[in-house]
Amino acid sequence: MDYASAGVDIDLEGSAVASLIGALGRSVRTPGTPGAPVDLPGGFGGLLEFGDHLLAMATDGVGSKLQIASSLNAWGGVGIDCMAMNVNDLLCVGAEPMAFVDYIAVPKPDPEVHAAIGASLAEACRRARVTLAGGETASLPGIVTEVDLSGTALGYMGRNDAITGEHVQAGDVLIGLPASGIHSNGYSLVRRIMEHVGADLSAPAPFDAVVAGRRIERFATQDGETPTLGEVLLNPTQVYVDPVIDLLNHLDAGHLGGRTSVRGLCHVTGGGLSNLLRLNADVGWRIDAPLPVLPEFTWLQETGGVETREMYRTFNMGMGMVLAVDAAHAKGLAAWLAERMPGSAVVGTVVEDEAPSVVHVPTGSTFSHY
Amino acid sequence: MDYASAGVDIDLEGSAVASLIGALGRSVRTPGTPGAPVDLPGGFGGLLEFGDHLLAMATDGVGSKLQIASSLNAWGGVGIDCMAMNVNDLLCVGAEPMAFVDYIAVPKPDPEVHAAIGASLAEACRRARVTLAGGETASLPGIVTEVDLSGTALGYMGRNDAITGEHVQAGDVLIGLPASGIHSNGYSLVRRIMEHVGADLSAPAPFDAVVAGRRIERFATQDGETPTLGEVLLNPTQVYVDPVIDLLNHLDAGHLGGRTSVRGLCHVTGGGLSNLLRLNADVGWRIDAPLPVLPEFTWLQETGGVETREMYRTFNMGMGMVLAVDAAHAKGLAAWLAERMPGSAVVGTVVEDEAPSVVHVPTGSTFSHY
Repeated sequence: MDYASAGVDIDLEGSAVASLIGALGRSVRTPGTPGAPVDLPGGFGGLLEFGDHLLAMATDGVGSKLQIASSLNAWGGVGIDCMAMNVNDLLCVGAEPMAFVDYIAVPKPDPEVHAAIGASLAEACRRARVTLAGGETASLPGIVTEVDLSGTALGYMGRNDAITGEHVQAGDVLIGLPASGIHSNGYSLVRRIMEHVGADLSAPAPFDAVVAGRRIERFATQDGETPTLGEVLLNPTQVYVDPVIDLLNHLDAGHLGGRTSVRGLCHVTGGGLSNLLRLNADVGWRIDAPLPVLPEFTWLQETGGVETREMYRTFNMGMGMVLAVDAAHAKGLAAWLAERMPGSAVVGTVVEDEAPSVVHVPTGSTFSHY
Repeated sequence: MDYASAGVDIDLEGSAVASLIGALGRSVRTPGTPGAPVDLPGGFGGLLEFGDHLLAMATDGVGSKLQIASSLNAWGGVGIDCMAMNVNDLLCVGAEPMAFVDYIAVPKPDPEVHAAIGASLAEACRRARVTLAGGETASLPGIVTEVDLSGTALGYMGRNDAITGEHVQAGDVLIGLPASGIHSNGYSLVRRIMEHVGADLSAPAPFDAVVAGRRIERFATQDGETPTLGEVLLNPTQVYVDPVIDLLNHLDAGHLGGRTSVRGLCHVTGGGLSNLLRLNADVGWRIDAPLPVLPEFTWLQETGGVETREMYRTFNMGMGMVLAVDAAHAKGLAAWLAERMPGSAVVGTVVEDEAPSVVHVPTGSTFSHY
């Protein structure tokens, strides 16, 4: 199986988005005024001038992970997924998230489902340290057949504090931060595999999902019991505000070489490891000591007969964020991160060879375009 | 017919949203820090501290108007609808819109549809004077059966420049700004009426839709020809950035009594005239000289057999925004607005009697709660 056969055509999506962007042209907001767009090297958009600051916006949804939540009526994690997908993107330009709004489309409002999503969003706000600044619930029985949840996060940073990946260079060290699970990408393939094997999401996970340092958030079982397959698949996306913002504040205070020690941050989302090429495509990214693969990925691969490279192109495989840092401070940065977020570790280096490429050394998987 | 029988239960939606808000509690962002929530009198949320400024976020979607656009494959207006629903809400707290992000959920990406929506969003950005700061297109074949489009707008204002409605008082004058059409509310009822009469959206509108000062944006006919029913129903929502922001800037420059001459702004959305009670429920709102009713509303009412009060509770009926202004400067403000936006006019006054209520004098329609 692969992602395209599961119904998602990344190239077609790319083409659709390109059509949309092509229609846009320049902003009416001219440089020097609030809201003027800031085009950064590295191709990052979404940054806005605002006096001495930059503002950043990110918008994303939970996607088809919602269908698993819906089938189990288990909504406790989806608000966290929605938040994480957005704030983790903000972190990657160096912005501190400060506010969030949600958009929920339903065929018919259900107060119980809303209360559960609300509780999940409340917990998400705590993890991401943001204010919930509003939201919209739309009843669209002619458009949606079940809950769709998306949101928009707003962040900020100093005028010259953006981190773009443009300064990533050969010799930089890559530090990986552990994922909490599948996060919120690749669920079309996950669901396809579940259908293929007729998996029972309410039954105990058919593999040992308990891994040191990874917490599975329970809605059907208790800590200590074997989690259900559904609980493992729905484990909410890791919010990386802690430790990333605290690290940047620590650097801004003059430690470990200052903020410029972090040359790039990459949220490993749809596209998997190939996301590194979005950060900088003039270098090679060599992952020779990856974080451990979470057991659900191994099980999904075996059960679905998915090729290894396809797994690394679709899923985070256990590493949800990657930092590219100045080699001179890499040891200190890795130690700081490992203390704050156990499981974080040096996973590779930036190299000159064969740019642009990402090479996952243990499996030989190579990516030369996003 | 009425709105509830068309499948929308406003009370149920309210209850669902209340469930969600109830789960939220206080923000982790404490007063004095960027992103801390600002709770204004009048119940407006969505405002955030940001140094010497306030930031405001609004999120909303186009709703079931999209189903009409989809049935006609006419997407040229929906980006403007999406923008207008959001930026018009920002204007109502006195915030100047500066950026926007869109979220599109589709069963399958279609580059042609995306290009059309993109062109519509580009035009919307010009009308609202904002930067498109990002967007997301999600392929969700298991969740949506046709295009859903929503978005989030970001605005700003000075720390003490919020307009909340709390200072609205008896004697204030109400100025109405003309609507361009149905805008983006009440389409469940519109569609129900269309089905009831078996209306042909591609045929010429069965009423004279041409009104002085109202432009119908064409996708099937030319200016001068009779517009189709579909064109009338899809006419994009008026963006009120021009004239409202220009008026506020004019006032801030010291004219017409300054910014405090505008005591409240109300976007007439779902709930129709009852929206005025959200602005201030300690006064009475007396509309004795309303703007002309647009012909599509008259036709919808007759065709659908809808009660008059239900029409005013569901639709804008020709007036998309209302300003409550200091009587001492009302004449000058009304003249400024009428010159900038022909059709704007004094429509009523704020009274002490029978608060809280909105009375539409010519029809006797009265609302005592939102």
